Amino acid sequence: MSDLRHDPIQRRWVIIATERGQRPSEFKTPPEEKKGGFCPFCPGNEHTTPPEILARRRGTAPNTAGWDIRVVPNKFPALRIEGDPDRTGVGLYDRMNGIGAHEVVIESPSHTDCFPDFSVEHIDRILSVYQDRLRDLQGDQRFRYLLVFKNHGSIAGASLAHPHTQIIATPITPRTVSIELQSMKDHFMVKERCLVCDIIHQELDMGVRLVSATEDFVVVAPYASRFPFELFIAPRRHAHSFLACEGGMRRNLAAVMKDTFTRLKASLGDPPFNFVFHIAPSISRQPHRSGYWQTLQFDFHWHIEIIPRLTRMAGFEWGTGFYINPTPPEDAAKYLREVEL
Amino acid sequence: MSDLRHDPIQRRWVIIATERGQRPSEFKTPPEEKKGGFCPFCPGNEHTTPPEILARRRGTAPNTAGWDIRVVPNKFPALRIEGDPDRTGVGLYDRMNGIGAHEVVIESPSHTDCFPDFSVEHIDRILSVYQDRLRDLQGDQRFRYLLVFKNHGSIAGASLAHPHTQIIATPITPRTVSIELQSMKDHFMVKERCLVCDIIHQELDMGVRLVSATEDFVVVAPYASRFPFELFIAPRRHAHSFLACEGGMRRNLAAVMKDTFTRLKASLGDPPFNFVFHIAPSISRQPHRSGYWQTLQFDFHWHIEIIPRLTRMAGFEWGTGFYINPTPPEDAAKYLREVEL
Repeated sequence: MSDLRHDPIQRRWVIIATERGQRPSEFKTPPEEKKGGFCPFCPGNEHTTPPEILARRRGTAPNTAGWDIRVVPNKFPALRIEGDPDRTGVGLYDRMNGIGAHEVVIESPSHTDCFPDFSVEHIDRILSVYQDRLRDLQGDQRFRYLLVFKNHGSIAGASLAHPHTQIIATPITPRTVSIELQSMKDHFMVKERCLVCDIIHQELDMGVRLVSATEDFVVVAPYASRFPFELFIAPRRHAHSFLACEGGMRRNLAAVMKDTFTRLKASLGDPPFNFVFHIAPSISRQPHRSGYWQTLQFDFHWHIEIIPRLTRMAGFEWGTGFYINPTPPEDAAKYLREVEL
Repeated sequence: MSDLRHDPIQRRWVIIATERGQRPSEFKTPPEEKKGGFCPFCPGNEHTTPPEILARRRGTAPNTAGWDIRVVPNKFPALRIEGDPDRTGVGLYDRMNGIGAHEVVIESPSHTDCFPDFSVEHIDRILSVYQDRLRDLQGDQRFRYLLVFKNHGSIAGASLAHPHTQIIATPITPRTVSIELQSMKDHFMVKERCLVCDIIHQELDMGVRLVSATEDFVVVAPYASRFPFELFIAPRRHAHSFLACEGGMRRNLAAVMKDTFTRLKASLGDPPFNFVFHIAPSISRQPHRSGYWQTLQFDFHWHIEIIPRLTRMAGFEWGTGFYINPTPPEDAAKYLREVEL
């Protein structure tokens, strides 16, 4: 089982995933994605993944072809479902067992299609699959946070080319989420308004960083973008829960995602990218079911962060948390607004 | 001039470096380092860089060959030396002008030699050049923090192969440094001991994550390493100021750096890496010269962070601040201790 360890200086948790273990000698040449090799996510190869957790299929038997979207446990999970956190101190350090869940949502039977190629209906179904898995996982009292994220392209960390999203349930709240929660709470305590609502209001007003705005959603290049063409998609009206985004509203989100990824592809030629859903931690998963956490949850404004991986300027950023972005978000937004589709 | 912008949700500053500006179309193919091309850092090409700020040279004229180590302003600086921060609000956002300094320390006339190849005496001279520049820059009241860092290899963000270190003076304290300062202060307030001193004590005691220990320095794979073969070098005895590391002690640091980078090269075959000096912000550069900042400064324990860039697993980490490390630091330390040199 992997180890979760806390850095007392930087105040963050790290997964030491011994079972994914790479021996030092394996790093001598950087790993490259195999082209044209065997793909465990393609139809016909269902027996090579762990048995499916969920699938949208048309009357075919589990773990055979005939599915539209398929969810399987990660074969090399960073966190494992069995066991207890077993929180312990090691001298002045803190650790716990690497329990959690690590699932893969195979987005389509096609090995190459991705969000710009999918129909709006198909993206809507993918989103509903995320929600089904989140609903199931949030029942587990051991988990503090649920991460939905996608790595597209090997530079963005994808080890398999077949389009897929990952869902990780963690026994801690990641530092980035904690900081967001705190910022939103502090803003609300003073102003009784949501920070993200205020940001959206200002962005709609100024327009220069707006990529698109529909009745339900905005797509914005953030004011302090760390990376060229960094974007976020957020609901226009305050909503703490992604799970409440259903029916017509979810379909609208699917349309906005298709449009946004189509614009990115048209502008940048299928760039490697990551997206991460920033969703509120659920109350039931917090250590104390106090009003504090309840407030935090409702203050949160869920959103999706999209990070194209275009620059290699990320040299010292790991060591400083300080970023240099060579492309103003105003330029990125203008380009994405005006690109021919 | 570039813009410094504050992200109100993530509470971090970002440099929007418009003058380094890359147009959207330039991202269509990822930038690759040119091999065998013209090198502005090689002897004979001194006229192609901005005029030198400082050089260790043997009686030759400035900006000609005959130097051992040469410091020049970055030709494409992320921050510029002229002007005032001009801190302003833009609606709910905060910004300031991108003032600061951005210098390049060309470590040697050789285009290919690096820390494992340099003599201990040469590394000692490089360290003394860092210190000279830090002493000069810390006199400028506009700067809050001084960053010394190195990108080695294009994967680690180096745009030129010729070995060089960068020094950036910023008008803000980077978030990672703020968190470190706060952790060290909190620890000291309760225990009247330094957190890093305590960590070093425990690491010397346990031994499993120790790469080397000399009279003055320890090299450790941190307990919660984010990356395979992540290391830190710290003085064994509490010291808040890197500038006080002079004479025999600085020479010992040079020897430890040579040994550490030689072990990394022998183990991993000249991997791309970053190093970052974590040094205390100087009192004179803080907004209020209060006892609070003075305590912070003396509580700080300076150290060097080394991050080999071996994995592409950094997919979602940007969005979460949450890391998965496939190599336990105990394995990395053992390998580095035992590698044949």
